Amino acid sequence: MTADSPSRRAPETARELLGEMRRWPIFDPHSHIDPHRPAARDLDEVLGYHYYTELAHSSGMPAADVAPELPPRARAENLARRLSALDNTVQHSWLIEIARTFHGFQGDRIGPGEIGDLYDRALHDRDGAAWDERVWKATNLERVFLTNEFDDPLEGWDTDRYVPCLRTDDLVLKLHEPRTIERLRAATGVDVGDGAGLREAVVKLFERFVAKGARACAISLPPDFAPRRAAPKRAVTPIRRAIRGMDLRPDEHDEIRGTVFWTLAECCADFGLPFDLMIGPIRNVYPAGVAGGRDLFDRRVSLHEYRELFNHFAGVTFPVSTLSPDAGAELVAYSWIFPNVLPMGHWWYSNIPAFIAADLKARIQAVPKVKLLGYYSDAYKLEFILPKFDMYRRILAETLAEEGMSKQGWTADRALEVAKLALVDNPRRVFPKRGREGVAAI
Amino acid sequence: MTADSPSRRAPETARELLGEMRRWPIFDPHSHIDPHRPAARDLDEVLGYHYYTELAHSSGMPAADVAPELPPRARAENLARRLSALDNTVQHSWLIEIARTFHGFQGDRIGPGEIGDLYDRALHDRDGAAWDERVWKATNLERVFLTNEFDDPLEGWDTDRYVPCLRTDDLVLKLHEPRTIERLRAATGVDVGDGAGLREAVVKLFERFVAKGARACAISLPPDFAPRRAAPKRAVTPIRRAIRGMDLRPDEHDEIRGTVFWTLAECCADFGLPFDLMIGPIRNVYPAGVAGGRDLFDRRVSLHEYRELFNHFAGVTFPVSTLSPDAGAELVAYSWIFPNVLPMGHWWYSNIPAFIAADLKARIQAVPKVKLLGYYSDAYKLEFILPKFDMYRRILAETLAEEGMSKQGWTADRALEVAKLALVDNPRRVFPKRGREGVAAI
Amino acid sequence: MTADSPSRRAPETARELLGEMRRWPIFDPHSHIDPHRPAARDLDEVLGYHYYTELAHSSGMPAADVAPELPPRARAENLARRLSALDNTVQHSWLIEIARTFHGFQGDRIGPGEIGDLYDRALHDRDGAAWDERVWKATNLERVFLTNEFDDPLEGWDTDRYVPCLRTDDLVLKLHEPRTIERLRAATGVDVGDGAGLREAVVKLFERFVAKGARACAISLPPDFAPRRAAPKRAVTPIRRAIRGMDLRPDEHDEIRGTVFWTLAECCADFGLPFDLMIGPIRNVYPAGVAGGRDLFDRRVSLHEYRELFNHFAGVTFPVSTLSPDAGAELVAYSWIFPNVLPMGHWWYSNIPAFIAADLKARIQAVPKVKLLGYYSDAYKLEFILPKFDMYRRILAETLAEEGMSKQGWTADRALEVAKLALVDNPRRVFPKRGREGVAAI
Repeated sequence: MTADSPSRRAPETARELLGEMRRWPIFDPHSHIDPHRPAARDLDEVLGYHYYTELAHSSGMPAADVAPELPPRARAENLARRLSALDNTVQHSWLIEIARTFHGFQGDRIGPGEIGDLYDRALHDRDGAAWDERVWKATNLERVFLTNEFDDPLEGWDTDRYVPCLRTDDLVLKLHEPRTIERLRAATGVDVGDGAGLREAVVKLFERFVAKGARACAISLPPDFAPRRAAPKRAVTPIRRAIRGMDLRPDEHDEIRGTVFWTLAECCADFGLPFDLMIGPIRNVYPAGVAGGRDLFDRRVSLHEYRELFNHFAGVTFPVSTLSPDAGAELVAYSWIFPNVLPMGHWWYSNIPAFIAADLKARIQAVPKVKLLGYYSDAYKLEFILPKFDMYRRILAETLAEEGMSKQGWTADRALEVAKLALVDNPRRVFPKRGREGVAAI
Repeated sequence: MTADSPSRRAPETARELLGEMRRWPIFDPHSHIDPHRPAARDLDEVLGYHYYTELAHSSGMPAADVAPELPPRARAENLARRLSALDNTVQHSWLIEIARTFHGFQGDRIGPGEIGDLYDRALHDRDGAAWDERVWKATNLERVFLTNEFDDPLEGWDTDRYVPCLRTDDLVLKLHEPRTIERLRAATGVDVGDGAGLREAVVKLFERFVAKGARACAISLPPDFAPRRAAPKRAVTPIRRAIRGMDLRPDEHDEIRGTVFWTLAECCADFGLPFDLMIGPIRNVYPAGVAGGRDLFDRRVSLHEYRELFNHFAGVTFPVSTLSPDAGAELVAYSWIFPNVLPMGHWWYSNIPAFIAADLKARIQAVPKVKLLGYYSDAYKLEFILPKFDMYRRILAETLAEEGMSKQGWTADRALEVAKLALVDNPRRVFPKRGREGVAAI
Repeated sequence: MTADSPSRRAPETARELLGEMRRWPIFDPHSHIDPHRPAARDLDEVLGYHYYTELAHSSGMPAADVAPELPPRARAENLARRLSALDNTVQHSWLIEIARTFHGFQGDRIGPGEIGDLYDRALHDRDGAAWDERVWKATNLERVFLTNEFDDPLEGWDTDRYVPCLRTDDLVLKLHEPRTIERLRAATGVDVGDGAGLREAVVKLFERFVAKGARACAISLPPDFAPRRAAPKRAVTPIRRAIRGMDLRPDEHDEIRGTVFWTLAECCADFGLPFDLMIGPIRNVYPAGVAGGRDLFDRRVSLHEYRELFNHFAGVTFPVSTLSPDAGAELVAYSWIFPNVLPMGHWWYSNIPAFIAADLKARIQAVPKVKLLGYYSDAYKLEFILPKFDMYRRILAETLAEEGMSKQGWTADRALEVAKLALVDNPRRVFPKRGREGVAAI
């Protein structure tokens, strides 16, 4: 065995691949960034990320320790006292990378002894836009997608950097709540009173979003949702009842959810927008949890329920994320068969190295490389994009070094081809800028 | 740490184990080989494997590009233009291994620039049988099992090499289609009119298959199929209605499927045949797909539904394959408890290195080695047996080197004992030749 | 690449971590040890562990070969003839470690040629208590939890070493069997006749168990069990019918199971006991199996069914084990969100290195380290605690060396912090000694 035999080189090779990948710009096709305040103004906005509050709460911190009415510094101090309980987690490693990269922190743990100085270093309330720009540049960001409520005015920022994306959960899952209809009327000017009015309003939403630079429609769906071809006549009465805020039977709720969802898919087809499906979350499973830390899932979910959707809308691209880590293998199979199904990123409870590595290996071995949508940050603040993408890029580099180069004999260039597609080229192609001609073509 | 410490030796050890395994003959207990045309006559028959057409279609190729009415060379050229989109997949690696091993190809990718020359090299339409023999020998094949429809005449080939296997999907799942009953009558000479006639016909099928050298009965079953002990009286009317081509209620379909399946299991018991269960596929989930690329699965499946079958037929050996990759762990548990349940190969959507490696590790750690049925090719053309077995043997070698030798301190001989059983000895023992005495013993 | 680059050091680092871990005492929070006969008196009591009898039976041994009426030596000899069929399994490796550590065995396989001498070496029927003590010391045991039936008198042993644990399966799942009510009456002196009497009796059980040093309540639950908040009025009649041994409808069984289970959780809250949930087994799936080798599971199970329980009993700690290996990822998510849900050990069909390694990696990456309950032996005889914990500690060391040190840059001390919590500190904290003050506080 020589010193440079393939397997012994794998770790070093991975580092070299990673070095190359880190020179590429980041295209982030899904986040919750607020374009008016993209980077964190203080450390509380970093530590307030639900991963830290929920993990701290899960390990014993009272929810009151991070209550909204507390001063930001107090919240940060309270949380810092709890970080040692969770400093084994990958989420903690993102925090350390942020502190080191953006705030000149030197250590590898943050506790009561470090929090004061770090809080001061991370304070950027007076230089907001300049700080946003610094984080953007340091991250080498090309584009970051937002998650916009349907009545977001979509104004006041550069939509080429912060790309609008129409989030449609409320329309599908909360149409029966009076507030939803009111918002829809206000946003579209349509006096929604029945199914026809609803459709007219939804079309107006798409027109406005596309005109404002939106490049995707997105929705998160519970595990028991099963899209079925809409039967408009059957839905007439339930939709009218929902709009009027009347009580609904479970089957009427199903009819409404199904009909609105199908209408959205039709608009995605008409307007040429990809429809991001984020499958799995059940909201408010743990009501006593901290904000953002109350949702979970039921692992008994299958993409087989989506067959009619994928077949019917052959012209719509469906970037799919699954929440339950054990559902990842099924997504590989559906992406391998359906041209319009693309595996997208590694989401939330599936976004930890153990699950990413397993899913990624299978995707690289069985899904055409032109269909891989590698990663998105899901971040609320710009600072998180870099450590999350770095986590993913490290795993991608290790996987390509081991499975591609060491076991399949690929060259580094060939491994990097796959990485470049997953990270940059495919997202650019799947989520292109939609010009006026795009709108006009409908 | 010395240069030859266990873990640093693992990759080299794996190569040595692999070298040894590659000297053994291949016993392939499941394929779709056509014994009249076992090896590919041209490259179109290689590229026509559904893995290539479906992955190319999934990445954008119109199904018309590989339509049956096109000249074979045109199909191959069309497909070659698409291979770059999927050259990351393990299926692509089989193709390259075929081109190199059998056709003197030197490169590591096949595109428009290579396809012409390669097509010429791979043309063997004039030397069919001799080419079959060359591939057979180069593959070091001992035996390959076929998948024969129940009305296959089973004549015209050496059944000791190409071993018949009775495929029973149509009998169980399509008894209500008039064509099935017609074929059954034609194949058996029994004027099937009711349940008794059906059983008589099925027994005749088994007699004929066993007399012709069949060594297994096989079936693929959808995830919602749940075998239940047959209640012949309850099935009388549904079966008669099915035979007459009358409309059936869903519960009648269930009754028929269950009854015919149970009858097959009884025949396996009577004739001493193993019953291969291939659990999971749902047919035609994506109707617009290419031939062979339309089936998928629902991951919500459990072997618990098979408990009554495994208990009742204690004397029947059930080699089991599961389609959903995440169902593999359950198969390990059922194989560990039930003497008559054996984990068999790594099938279709589960047949990629990431899933094979995970399943294999668990099988080797928890299933008695005498029960491991390592691998089968599932191939349609002989050329694929070698690269597919090589993929499996490489993973087997890596697993044994790492988990057995490095972590458990096994010697290489001990690792090879396990490999030999899984690859050669167990398949020979579980699927023995059934002589006249076998038939006579009923 | 230098000789001591991180990844090349991982195997050696793992050995160093393991060496340190092996110096710590073992805290074993779940076993089936008989405190009156904790260590094996002869080799038959070792080989009689269901793993060996069931794996041997699964690979062809008739159940009669290990029938209770045989002399112990004959059973051991019969089993030894079968061990070669399963010497690949991890369970076999425990056996060899026992033979080497406790009985001076030198080989690496046990067959007919070795069994006689080994049987003689392992005979300790004359020096029972002294042998128990030797095994206890050699194992470096601190504490081992028992599994006590509710009517166990809990007398005659040191409950600080052998800690009582109230096992409640019979109360929840077999209340309708006359024997259960009789035993309950005898154990508590309460003339149980209705729901109120049942509750009074259960409270008495908890009082007695806590007074005798119990530190946990435990139950194993089938996959279709879904805890629901008790509706005492609705349960009045079914419980009375059950107590009187009358026939019950399925919905009445559900009502009873749910009500008794909820009562147990209330008592855990009142008495401050953790409630171990062991989710998954279905009893007697393979009735013809050997003793202890008849149970399996249905993998379609979800912790989502437990949401109401986890929410309602916020003050009760629920150490959770799941049986289906593919359910492990969901447990990670629920432990990450719910403060009172802790992932506990790696159980039964999930207790093999392939599944442990995958689950452990995810737990270390996503569950706060203060919540990890690393491992328990589930053993019936003391001798098994050491090899099972050694298997786990080896995997823990490898995981920390690779994922923590090599990939996250942790120091060895930091890796050992996590290990110490999982193995020793967390179990001590979660299962503390309950003094009189604990009881008095109710």
